[in-house]
Amino acid sequence: MEKICVLGAGSWGSALALELAKKGYEISMWTKNQEQAESIKLTRENKNYLPGILFPENIGLTTDIEEAIKGSTVIVLAVPSQAIRSICSKIKPFVKDEQILVDVAKGLEKGTGLRLSEVCKEELPNNPYVTLSGPSHAEEVARDIPTTVVVASEDLNVAKKIQDIFMSPEFRVYTNPDIVGVELGGALKNIIAFGAGICDGLGYGDNAKAALMTRGISEIGRLGVAMGANKLTFAGLSGIGDLIVTCTSMHSRNRRAGILIGQGKSLEETLEEVKMVVEGITATDVAHKVAKELNIDMPITNAIYSVLYEGLDPKEVGVALMMRDKTHEMEEVAIK
Amino acid sequence: MEKICVLGAGSWGSALALELAKKGYEISMWTKNQEQAESIKLTRENKNYLPGILFPENIGLTTDIEEAIKGSTVIVLAVPSQAIRSICSKIKPFVKDEQILVDVAKGLEKGTGLRLSEVCKEELPNNPYVTLSGPSHAEEVARDIPTTVVVASEDLNVAKKIQDIFMSPEFRVYTNPDIVGVELGGALKNIIAFGAGICDGLGYGDNAKAALMTRGISEIGRLGVAMGANKLTFAGLSGIGDLIVTCTSMHSRNRRAGILIGQGKSLEETLEEVKMVVEGITATDVAHKVAKELNIDMPITNAIYSVLYEGLDPKEVGVALMMRDKTHEMEEVAIK
Repeated sequence: MEKICVLGAGSWGSALALELAKKGYEISMWTKNQEQAESIKLTRENKNYLPGILFPENIGLTTDIEEAIKGSTVIVLAVPSQAIRSICSKIKPFVKDEQILVDVAKGLEKGTGLRLSEVCKEELPNNPYVTLSGPSHAEEVARDIPTTVVVASEDLNVAKKIQDIFMSPEFRVYTNPDIVGVELGGALKNIIAFGAGICDGLGYGDNAKAALMTRGISEIGRLGVAMGANKLTFAGLSGIGDLIVTCTSMHSRNRRAGILIGQGKSLEETLEEVKMVVEGITATDVAHKVAKELNIDMPITNAIYSVLYEGLDPKEVGVALMMRDKTHEMEEVAIK
Repeated sequence: MEKICVLGAGSWGSALALELAKKGYEISMWTKNQEQAESIKLTRENKNYLPGILFPENIGLTTDIEEAIKGSTVIVLAVPSQAIRSICSKIKPFVKDEQILVDVAKGLEKGTGLRLSEVCKEELPNNPYVTLSGPSHAEEVARDIPTTVVVASEDLNVAKKIQDIFMSPEFRVYTNPDIVGVELGGALKNIIAFGAGICDGLGYGDNAKAALMTRGISEIGRLGVAMGANKLTFAGLSGIGDLIVTCTSMHSRNRRAGILIGQGKSLEETLEEVKMVVEGITATDVAHKVAKELNIDMPITNAIYSVLYEGLDPKEVGVALMMRDKTHEMEEVAIK
């Protein structure tokens, strides 16, 4: 059976390894953490990330990245978005041109603002590349609860190959040729999830949060289109679908971080408490900068930016959400 | 101060009466239930629908509908959707042509499949008409938690007048000229909320529910456009916004009814247990019929219809949700 390697042994990498193992692939899972590798090997369980789920024997663990990727037709990149560049650079000496990279991280590179496909292209320009995104809590995928995702690639045939590899009755995979839109949806929705957390932290209710999500996906779509995405992608699984799952879940560290900010904590205190990468904070910085350059109106993103980086009181975010002026719901509709 | 009447003393009518009373309007609230009217008058509280909220003195109660509407510039129709025709017919002898009807019920008329604006027009053809919709749990509005809604009318000036009357810092009102889209969004989202309940009843998770909502709003939009609505309206507050609030809330009787169906109860047992109007069940019937006539593909609605009216096992709804074939996410995108 084909060999597939998964780089990263967090909850999402593990869930995808389990999904592929179920289909009979030989999985080689790499983690740099020796102790974690030993523990999973020994107990057949990823205690920290997916407690209670049995890892079958066709998931092998290794801390040797060369061994992990050797002979794999597909390399799943399941590391945090800010580690994508270093992991690509790490595998560069061993990788073969025909090995397909499947990125399952969501984010934009800090500093450059690049999409992860662009980061990978800079490091590994010859490899086919697919991004996998959509509303997919790892815990549910690992428990075989029905889930749908989208795969996007510049080369539709490669996307279709990945669709075939991952597809199962409980894990439905759609293709979408709009890689820019799929990547931006996954990265930028974290801004709105973070904003939803602020709403919760301020004690707002479901009405305000639904309004924030509705207007949030609309402004993300505006920026996305200016950056080359197809508007319809934001109405799909990797856009509003993923936003819904993220905003309504306590699993989301973006939302959890937002709650702390909404309760009046500082950015430093929040990061201290969450102790994990909060993609939405980086994404806010990047989106704010790009929106300014492209002259795109993003009231929610700008309000969150002001709270994070300019010391604005989070209560002011409420004002940005609710807007100041009486207005039409949508300019396009109003003009009709 | 201007007089406004609210017909119906359920939770939504009461919340809107409170919102308007806060702005100083003289509110005349009508209920056919003598006991309820007396109780609210005496206790200044609507115990059954909004317990714990004080009704100020400028909300008057009456069971005399002629007295209620007399001299009111605005008549708020806050009765269940299936009672809209009878209430219009009831006030017909007393109503003046300049009195503005504001419908806040969401649904389609059983039997005829008419939108509520069409029902009102048949009964009261000379009155200006506005529909008010959006993500708005009554409990939150009554507690002054920020909320945004949309008002739509064939006459934008009338919509703007209603916007001015209802608007407050905590209750933001947007106008939208697409009355067909606003009405259909509010009515048809109950089908998807009902489907979300079935998902929950089947023990599915957040991933599947987000997928259902994403694909659900897309199919509702398809039907809506064929019925004359603007597609963008479904991406707004009265579309996806309202859907999000409804699908994530236990307040929603549509979702609660769906849960029972998902758990294997029959339609009769479900209606017996919920003991209230379940708009989504009527809406499913109407949408299924109209979609057939207009040749619109609505896999989710059709699956729910089969469960409700053709005895299909609710587990089959899961199949309809997850789809059988490998496919592109969106035809329009795939063709690009």
